[in-house]
Formats: sequence, structure tokens, C-alpha cells
Amino acid sequence: MEPKLQQAAIGVDLGGSHARAAVVTVAGRILTQARARVADDRRPEAVVARIVEVVQDALAQAGLGLEEIHGLGVGVAGQVRGASGVVANGPNLGWREVPLADLLEQALGTRPRVANDLDAIAWGEVRHGAALGHKEVLVVYAGTGVGGAFVIAGQAHHGATGVAGEIGHVKVRGPDGAACGCGGRGCLEAYLGGKNLSERLRREAIAWPDLMEAAGGQLDALHPGVVESLFVRGDARALAMWRELGEMFGDVLAHAVTLFNPSLLVLGGTVAEGCPELMRLARERLGQRASSVSLEALSVVAAQLGDDAGVVGAASLGRMVFESKDGGS
Amino acid sequence: MEPKLQQAAIGVDLGGSHARAAVVTVAGRILTQARARVADDRRPEAVVARIVEVVQDALAQAGLGLEEIHGLGVGVAGQVRGASGVVANGPNLGWREVPLADLLEQALGTRPRVANDLDAIAWGEVRHGAALGHKEVLVVYAGTGVGGAFVIAGQAHHGATGVAGEIGHVKVRGPDGAACGCGGRGCLEAYLGGKNLSERLRREAIAWPDLMEAAGGQLDALHPGVVESLFVRGDARALAMWRELGEMFGDVLAHAVTLFNPSLLVLGGTVAEGCPELMRLARERLGQRASSVSLEALSVVAAQLGDDAGVVGAASLGRMVFESKDGGS
Repeated sequence: MEPKLQQAAIGVDLGGSHARAAVVTVAGRILTQARARVADDRRPEAVVARIVEVVQDALAQAGLGLEEIHGLGVGVAGQVRGASGVVANGPNLGWREVPLADLLEQALGTRPRVANDLDAIAWGEVRHGAALGHKEVLVVYAGTGVGGAFVIAGQAHHGATGVAGEIGHVKVRGPDGAACGCGGRGCLEAYLGGKNLSERLRREAIAWPDLMEAAGGQLDALHPGVVESLFVRGDARALAMWRELGEMFGDVLAHAVTLFNPSLLVLGGTVAEGCPELMRLARERLGQRASSVSLEALSVVAAQLGDDAGVVGAASLGRMVFESKDGGS
Repeated sequence: MEPKLQQAAIGVDLGGSHARAAVVTVAGRILTQARARVADDRRPEAVVARIVEVVQDALAQAGLGLEEIHGLGVGVAGQVRGASGVVANGPNLGWREVPLADLLEQALGTRPRVANDLDAIAWGEVRHGAALGHKEVLVVYAGTGVGGAFVIAGQAHHGATGVAGEIGHVKVRGPDGAACGCGGRGCLEAYLGGKNLSERLRREAIAWPDLMEAAGGQLDALHPGVVESLFVRGDARALAMWRELGEMFGDVLAHAVTLFNPSLLVLGGTVAEGCPELMRLARERLGQRASSVSLEALSVVAAQLGDDAGVVGAASLGRMVFESKDGGS
């Protein structure tokens, strides 16, 4: 085996539309990768078959066999019950109580470490990205949904049942707040999540000509970045909307920072990346609303790994399990 | 040495008015104890002299020498900078940047583990009280002030700079909220802390005859328990106040439970113990406002150790350091 292939691990990122697998070096570099569509058939056995295909494809490109791999990790868009690898609830896949680790072990002959996709992303940023070297980290992703993950004493924090870090489901409004995909009302994600926010923009565009114009007259082209561009041009309505959402997001970040006292807050996801002014407002609010002692040691940075964080982090989680079994040899 | 004295540790609880020391068995039972007033002279050297006295008094009662002790821990009402044992800010003692661990090591010849008093209390409940056997615990104390501590993966969680768990300083109101002892505004403690709440009651009593009457006409006798008794009798104003505070407290508990996914929430402190109806309202609100998945595995219980939690927990923290150095011998 070439030196660069030594100790490579496989990371899989499983979302509602695609499965992606990558062979990742010990330094967090992606060597080879493959991607397959899962949106056409999301039954667990079909999705597992797609995952097996992309894993074998990525391995073949690297000229490696599965037996040469130092760990296999899967990040999945859903709530995972601890070390069991059971996906309790994966709304984008339509899954409830799917024993993904068991199914993949039967199909591949190797047991994967299955984790929530945001835990995998957070772990990627901690091991190979923006949070390298930090032991107390809060990673928050504002993308299609809003999620978070904590690293505590250098370890991914899962909580009692593996659902820690659900920052998108902290309530920012009362029982009459906006409906959320989780079944609750008033969750942060119901306002800040890209899916929900874009739906709101489509509803408001009818009575907001400047928004419609900025989207080129196309409802389908509406996304949070369009409001960001209006904000930059001084549009009063965009200003009010960003101020409302910035305060909401900043308050929840402040709660989390006050309670956990991290040294680093990493902000990522398409909404965070596409809306720097909204993030500036949220950070301002965070600075006003977290306890002063928790702010003394806090840095706020952007995520570094972008779309690769999921596979890189999943590979790293898989490698961790492998090394704990194998003594790191 | 008698068997019951084997492996005894010393715990010290240092507040703004008194220092208390106890000799504590490995099972968490208090063998002997001593107490001294520190309120008359709170200069660090004077307080250290009082601590030395109570430690030596408790040891003498037990017939033990300091060299026979398996660890020394101190819980102090203030923010402690990690393992350095420096009290960064102890408002009730009037301390800033006091190197308490160094001072006690010079005076006693043994280096103590110094921790925030609520971290010590939480640790006491985890090792010997309500949270025995749980690895993911949130302990919240609503007493004179409001504080909290997390146990994560079986370990006390201190955060990047030792100020994690400051649940009393999560903001529940905007920048025009009530002033808090921390210098901020709108903190939970500014409303729910016994000191601040009693001050509010004294202000409101002038225009609230039933409250004044329930306190026997004495402003000094006003405390949160008086409102609790009015609530039980169906007093409309007490009802409104408890509903407001219950929602406030329940919301913050919900944020913490959603973010952190504990299996156990322990509620303690004089306000929690003296106001069961207020706690019932807070728990109801928690059940409505935390993410549904984080509630599945959650139990809520009352603290068990009462006033002893501080010394018992401090002794346990001290023992932990001792055993890590000494291989548990």
C-alpha cells in the first residue's frame, strides 16, 4: 500500500437525497469519493444497497479493499440512539427506528459507527478543521435545518440518549409560534432553517415587490441569500427581518455559551455561509446576551470544511472506534 | 485507625458568611464537622486562617491527622479558574483573583482541589445523593442565587474556563430586564434568586396587603415561601407571580435539557425546597418546551443531601484528585 493510503478510513454522509462515501486519510484529506441518489427509493434496504455501492466505488478508485480500512463511519440526517446505531427518527429519509449499523454490518461484513450528521460534521471540524486543538467546542450549522454539536473535554458529547445539541429545537417563541418539522412550535429551526425560511419568503414575496424583483421574479429562486442582498442595499423590510432573526439566533447561541462555556463557537451551513450580515447581527446579540465570564474566552469562527465536513468527520468517528478496538495498530 | 475512618476525606464549604469543614467517609457520610464565621473579616488571609481552624477542628474530633486524609476539597461561592484553584470572582466574599488553592497549600501543607460551590454540590448529589449512578446529569440550585452544574460522561463539566453551568445568568428578559448581581440585566437569577425575589416582595408588599398580612406585617419576614402559601390559598396575585416565574424557570430548564440531553435533572436549593408549587409550574413548562426527544429519557428529582451537599461533594472532589495521584491506595 502506498504511504498515503495507510490508515485510510471511510466516511459516509447520508442525507435525504444522496449518499456520499469518501476514502479519507489520517490527516483528513479526501482521496477518492462516490455519490449515489437515494431520493427515488428511501426504504432502508434500498438505501443500504446504495451505501454499499458508493463505499465499494470509493474503495475501488483508491485500489483498496474493505479489510485494509481503518474504520467506517456514517453520518445520517436523523436522531441516532447512542452506540446502537439505530436511527430513531430521520424525517428527511422517512425513517423511524431503523437499525442502520446492523443492516450495514450484515451487508458489508464490517460494523460502522453511525452518528447524527451534525455530530460527524462537528467532529470533522474538531479533528481537521476550524476547531483543531480545542477541547470545548460548540458547532452550530444553520443550513436546510439548524443543528448543533458539542465537544466536551475533547470528546463528542451525545447526551443520555444521543440527542444532545438539538439547538434547532430550542424554543424561541411561545406555543403560538411557527410550526416545526419536529412536531413542536416556536423552534429556532422553524424560523432560521433554510427550508422554513425560504417557504416564508415565498409567502411574503407576494406583498414584497423588491424581494420578488431581487429573485428575478421567480418564486423558486427565493432563498435567504436574496434577503441578505436586500439588507446590504438598505431595504427596510430586509433590515427588520434580519434583525428579528439575528436576535433570535443570537439569544439561543448566548444560552448555549452561558451554559457550556466553550472556547470556540464554529458557525457553518448554507444559511450561515450565504448570509454574513445576518451572522454579524447574531454575533452582536451573542456578545450582549451571554454571561460576561463565558464570553472572556470565546472565539467565533466560520466552519472550514464546507461540504466535506460530513464525510471527513464520519471517517474520523469510524477511525476512533477502529483504533479503540485495535490499539491503533 | 478504625475501619470507618479509613479513606476519609475533608470537604470545605466556603460561603460569604461561614466556612464549614467536614470529615467525610468514602460512602459520603459526615463523621465530624466544624464551622466558623468569616463575615467579620473576608480578607483572603483571614478566611484562610478560619478554614485552617475548621479543618483542624474536624480532624481533631475524628482523631485523625491531615496526613491520614484521602483528599481535601473546597467548594467556594464564586467562579474558579479551572485546576489553578484561583477564585476569579467571589461576589459574596468580595474576592477577585484570589489564589485560594495556593494559599491553603502554604497554610496546610496539602494542596486542596478548589471548585465552584455548585460544582461541589452537584458532585455530592452524583456520588452520594439523588443522581447516584447517572452519567448525564443537570443539577440546578435555586437558593439565594441560582446556579447549575453539568455532569457529562460521568465527569463534572467545567467548560473552557471553569464557568460552565451558569444557568442563573441565562437571559430571560431583554436589555431592559431586572438588574443582576453579575452586572448584566434580565438574568434568571435577577428574578428567581431568593435574594432578588425577596427584595421584590418587599417592594410589592406596600401595595399587596395580603402578602404583608401573610408575613405577619413584617417586611423582614418576607421570603418566597410566603408567596407559595398565598398561591396555595388561591391568591390571584401570587398565582400570576408564580406563573410568570414558573414559565421563566421552565423555559431555561427546557433550553438546557434540549441542548444537553441529561437523563436526570436534580432540583435543589431553598427556593426549590420551600416552593413546591412554583417548581410544579416550572416542571410543567419544561415538559411543554423542551424538545420531545430530550424529554423521553428525562427524570426530574429533588436534591437529597440538603445543606450537606457542599461538604460531601467537596470531599468527593478532593478524594478524586487524591486517588488519581495515588493510584487509589
